[in-house]
Formats: sequence, structure tokens, C-alpha cells
Amino acid sequence: MDKLTTWVNVPADSDFSIYNLPFGIFSTSDLSPRAGIAIGNKIVDLAGLARVKILPIDPAILEQNTLNDFISLGKATTSAVRAVVQRLLCNDDALRQNYPQLLVDMADATMHLPVQVGDYTDFYSSIEHATNIGTMFRGVDNALMPNWKHIPVGYHGRASSIIPSGVDIHRPKGQVMPKDATAPVFQASGRVDFELETAFIVGKDTTLGENISTKNAEDYIFGMVLFNDWSARDIQKWEYVPLGPFLGKSFASSISPWIVTLEALEHFRVAGPVQEPAVLPYLEYSGNKNYDIALEVSIQPKDAEEKVVSRSNFKYMYWNMAQQLAHHTINGCNMKIGDMMGSGTISGKDESSYGSMLELSWAGTKPLTMADGSTRVFLKDYDTVIMRGHAEKDGIRVGFGEVRSQVLPAL
Amino acid sequence: MDKLTTWVNVPADSDFSIYNLPFGIFSTSDLSPRAGIAIGNKIVDLAGLARVKILPIDPAILEQNTLNDFISLGKATTSAVRAVVQRLLCNDDALRQNYPQLLVDMADATMHLPVQVGDYTDFYSSIEHATNIGTMFRGVDNALMPNWKHIPVGYHGRASSIIPSGVDIHRPKGQVMPKDATAPVFQASGRVDFELETAFIVGKDTTLGENISTKNAEDYIFGMVLFNDWSARDIQKWEYVPLGPFLGKSFASSISPWIVTLEALEHFRVAGPVQEPAVLPYLEYSGNKNYDIALEVSIQPKDAEEKVVSRSNFKYMYWNMAQQLAHHTINGCNMKIGDMMGSGTISGKDESSYGSMLELSWAGTKPLTMADGSTRVFLKDYDTVIMRGHAEKDGIRVGFGEVRSQVLPAL
Repeated sequence: MDKLTTWVNVPADSDFSIYNLPFGIFSTSDLSPRAGIAIGNKIVDLAGLARVKILPIDPAILEQNTLNDFISLGKATTSAVRAVVQRLLCNDDALRQNYPQLLVDMADATMHLPVQVGDYTDFYSSIEHATNIGTMFRGVDNALMPNWKHIPVGYHGRASSIIPSGVDIHRPKGQVMPKDATAPVFQASGRVDFELETAFIVGKDTTLGENISTKNAEDYIFGMVLFNDWSARDIQKWEYVPLGPFLGKSFASSISPWIVTLEALEHFRVAGPVQEPAVLPYLEYSGNKNYDIALEVSIQPKDAEEKVVSRSNFKYMYWNMAQQLAHHTINGCNMKIGDMMGSGTISGKDESSYGSMLELSWAGTKPLTMADGSTRVFLKDYDTVIMRGHAEKDGIRVGFGEVRSQVLPAL
Repeated sequence: MDKLTTWVNVPADSDFSIYNLPFGIFSTSDLSPRAGIAIGNKIVDLAGLARVKILPIDPAILEQNTLNDFISLGKATTSAVRAVVQRLLCNDDALRQNYPQLLVDMADATMHLPVQVGDYTDFYSSIEHATNIGTMFRGVDNALMPNWKHIPVGYHGRASSIIPSGVDIHRPKGQVMPKDATAPVFQASGRVDFELETAFIVGKDTTLGENISTKNAEDYIFGMVLFNDWSARDIQKWEYVPLGPFLGKSFASSISPWIVTLEALEHFRVAGPVQEPAVLPYLEYSGNKNYDIALEVSIQPKDAEEKVVSRSNFKYMYWNMAQQLAHHTINGCNMKIGDMMGSGTISGKDESSYGSMLELSWAGTKPLTMADGSTRVFLKDYDTVIMRGHAEKDGIRVGFGEVRSQVLPAL
């Protein structure tokens, strides 16, 4: 990769290097919601760049509270916009000298959901996670369901309750079946959990009946975000047979606000795990389809320091994004720009890399100690959960920033 | 109910009587997609009525390809519009004499999806259906899951593949696990099925964290449609454990184009079944929350007459719509205008009233004979499935028209 130097002061550990340039929607006290690109601690106002005609795009497309219409211009255009901004931030004086007001301090900005999500699907594609959950509930010999190595198992999630980083959530209430009870009770969930995931955003529509091959799948992926798939384990456990998770998930799903493009992640491709038994032809793929993205989760109790409770990596995924998309559309199901596909909880092989409290505390049997000495098996009120992720190689760093949200008491 | 007489020539068996007046989106060769109200074989052009200022509404809200913005004006407004149109169609000359062109022939119109569905949820609320399915798979003694009588079980569906009546579907392809096989195979589904359902359309937003009581639930329901929840049973069977139905459902979901308002159905309320054991307080309700709506399904093979294969009724529902909405939001999940909630397959007590081929053919063991003498256990290519529904009492008929779609061969 060519070495690039920007005139913007980008801290060495910034996720938003000149090689990244993710897209998001921001607003300030002066600026209505609009498209931006992150660089260091700054945001490039894309709508402003269009207004002064540095970007040959209708400003109205960029002065919206979602990126959907921008993404619908196609990758040729959105990639060109990213390339123009990269040049402006390196050796071009147009922005630096003539329009310094189009570089906004991140500290002054509010980040919004980057896209309107039409449909959200959550996969279950980490073999370590599926094995952990299966072992807990069915024993180690029956951990994986018979379909697991043949299908990137997934389910439809609730799109309306997807929220951006920084929006706090309330502990959900619902029905749970206490151990040894004969009837369910109604209460605030006692087992609120996070799930460490990534998600990708669909960047191109398909029509009903069409399917996407693993070879072409990346043309349909605009980029990725971090994703905390909040879960109420006690509600989920009672409700999920036979039709799957519902209210145990739909109270909130938090994503990081910056969409990191697949182009920015290109440098960090790695091989995925060997898939044995062989998959059916429509799921076969060639080339490196996994990405080496370090992920971590911290819990910060009220008035305490945060503590990292998990360090995992996106490269562990058994099923890759191309396979997920090929599977999702093999029945003709149509994709829409802005659709979001969650990875499923990303756990690694050892227990320091498990992606949920359910696994980290092994179903509540092994408490974790926080920075203030308190312990957790699941989340307590006022705990803040922070997920971070970044790729780094050859001195190049491309990251996601964070997704952060506090668990407030039940309403 | 007051006796009403319209000057429009409404056939006696029309679903679209003066008491109904459902909302939909139509277009013609001359008119772009817009909001309309059905009366007999005609459609009242609401956008046109707004243009000539008979309706005090911005025409731009009605000249759209969805009703979402219109519905967002609130029930006070949408009900008033319906009342104005009812008056115009009875004893007012404003429409009849001055604007006859605002009454469009249904035969000249194309119907569209009436709303943009943000999220779609499918419930599983017919005890007869759940018992049938459970009996087939687990035996009569374990037919209902332990949670079934405590929870209106439901799951998130795929919104992108919801299509209006008249759009044909293709037989989906996917993974199935043949009986006694050791590995799945890829093929066109051999078990394409319909599910006879209704669905309601959410008419009012809630915010994340808010919940809707059974008492207030009807304020949040704009109206109802017929719903054919297409299912590929072989794909579904292999994929659905543990996270629920996915590709076995998401290839298509067909709805009737006219949204019948709850007001129009008011006259047909009936008591629901006794719920025993008692439900938790947040699911308790008072008053008649079921509706006596006769439903039927026909299959029409290619070049043959159609044959009615099921006659059921919406009054059989164990869980009512108010309970479904109260449950869905008890965890704080937010609702958005246009969200769609399916009832689940509506089966009655005897086998002539079962709402799916899976039940009618008892998992493929009892073939049904068609009008042309051919037999079916599941649907064949070129079969057209037609669902109809109407309520009738005291000489007043309020119906849904139909949802009709043909199964085309796999692509």
C-alpha cells in the first residue's frame, strides 16, 4: 500500500487514519445531519464539499440523516468520493486553505445512525460461540446442531430498535420462567448481556428472485460497523422455542456510527478456517474472505474505571460475509441498500476471548471482577459496555472507534 | 349501525361496501401511484379529492406510493377522511356531479403495496394450528410447547420480500436434508406451502422503552389485510433449529392491497376463546377483541377451475391483536407506522378449516383432489393460491378482496 501523509494532525493510535476514511452521519449545533468522513479527531463535511462543488454530487443527497441515498449512487461513486477526500487530506490545498470550516471537530459533533436499516439479519457464524452455547445447554458431545456446518445459520432481527453508540438502554422487562417454577413470572430481566459482533451494511439492491454469488458478494457490501447485540438471556430462554429469539433481543441493538468500507479493510484480509465437511457449491468461495480485526469489550461500572473483559478477533469467523450473503439470497430473498447483517457473537478459542457474559461467566457460574472490585456474571444497572475494534498491519491502522451504551434501570 | 345507501352501483356480494371503505395505493395508465378508497368496483382518488380541496389535506401526502405519511397524520384525520368519503358516496353531490373523474374503475387500476413495511413480525397465535403442527412433530401429548399458553409466540420476519397480490412468486431453492440422508442437498423446494393469515398494520409510532397496553392497543392498529405467508417446509425444517424460520419464509410474503380499518370491522367483534391458564396481568384484556371474519383459500391449477381447500375464521385466534401488540412492546421494543404483524396460520377445529397444506395434507400423507382431478399434498408449479376474507352480519358486508399469487417454476 502506498504510504500516505495527511496534513491533519492524526494521533498515532487513532482508528481514523488517512487509510480508513469511514462514512457517517453527523450534526453539530450549527449543521443539520449530513454525511461526513472521519479523519483523526475531525470530520470532513461532505455536504459542504458538495456545496462548494469540490464533490460533483447533488448536496441534497449528502444533507440527509441517512447515507442510503448516497450509497445508492453505487460503489464507483462512493469510492471516488473517498478517493477525492483522501487526496484533499494529503497533498491538495483546496480544503486546507480555502475551506477550513469544512473540517469539523469530532468533539462538537453528534453522531447518528449512519443508515436507515430496512431489514436486519443476525447470523450465528462463530464456531467457538456456537460450541460454547451448545456445550452449556446440550453438553460437549452435542454442542453443534446438525445443520451448523452446512448453513450459516441466521434469523431475522428487529430493525426499529437499532440505535447508535451513545444512546443508553433500559433493562427490559418480560416473562421469564424461574428454575423449578411451574408458571412464568413478569419481571425486569436479571440476565442482561452484550454480544460482541460486527455487522455489514448492504450497498446494492437485488430484486426478488435474484441471488448473489460468493464471488460477487463483496460488490453488495458497503462496509462494516461494530455491533452490540444486547440480549436478555432469561427472556430469550423462555420464549425462543420453536421460532427463535424475539423480545430477548428486540429491546435494543447498538452499532458504532462510522461505516468502515471494505476498501479500507482490503489490506487486512486473511484466510478463514478450513470448512470441513465441504460446503455445498453455492457456499464455496476462493481467496481470503476473513479479516484480521482485533475486537475488545470493556465494562465500566458507575463511577469506576473500565475493564477489558474480552479480546477477540473477527478473523475467527467460520462463515464469512460472502457466504452469509450468498446463503441469505439463495432462495431469492431480495436485499435493500441499508440492510444490516450481524456476524453473530464473535468468540475466540480461549475464555479471555469469549464475546458474551453468558460465555465469560459460563452461564453465571464464574463471576468476573471489575476494576472497582465488584463482580459480574451479567450486567448490572449503570454498567457501560464499550466495544472497540481495529485492524493494524505494516504500521497502518484502520479502526471502528467504539460502540458505547449504558444499561439504565428498568422503566 | 345506521343504514347507508350509496349512489355507486355496488354489487350485493362486494367486499367493498359503503360500510367498508378501505385504504390502498393504486395507479392507472394516467395516474401515478396515489392513495385511494375502494367502493364496489370503483376507487375514489383521494389525491384528486385533496387537489380540488374537498379533502383539507396536502395532496403531496396522498400522491405517494405508500400510505405511511397519510397514516402518520393520525387516526383523527384518517378517520375523518373516511367519513368525508362515506358522505360523498351517499347523499352529497360534490363528487357525483362535479368530479366524476375522481371515481376510477378498479379494472383500470394497478394495486401496489399499501405501506412501506419497516419491520414485519409473524405470530403463531392459532391454538388449532400450533396443536396440529406440534402433534405432527412431537405427538398429541406434547403438541403445545410449555410457553405457548403464556406467550403470544412470534418471530421477526423479512420485510423486503413482502409483495402485493398479483405478483407471482418463484419456487425457492435451498438446502434440504432428505429423509435418511447424511448430508443436505441443494434443490428447488419440494414442499412449497401457503399459510392462511391476516396481518395488521401499525398506525402510530412508539418510542424505544415505551410499551402499549392491551387497553390502548387498538389506537396503534390502523387496519388489517389478508396475508399469505408462503413457506418452503423442507428448507424450513432443516434450517430452523435453534434460531427459527429464515429462508423457508423469506422468499416471499403476499398481502392483499386494501387495508380494512378497525372502524370498519367494529360491527363484527366477538369474544375470543377462554384463556386457561390465566395470562400474566400485562396480557389481560376486557371486551370483545376477536373479529368474526370468514376466510377461505382456493387453489387453481394451470388451466383449471379453482377449488376451495380451506374455510377458516379469524375468530378462532387464541391470542388477539391487542395481546400481540402488548407483548411485542413489553420489553420496550418500539413500533413504527407501517410495521406489519402477521397472525400466524389461522386454522379451525376440523380439517376443512386448516390453514396450510402441511395440515390439510397432514404432512403430505393425505392428498387433496383439485377441480381437474389432479391431487396435491403441497403446491405444484403454476398453481395459483387465492385467499379471500369477509365479515357479514345484519346485511352488512365488509371484506378484504383477495390475495392471489401463482407459483412459478424455480429460476
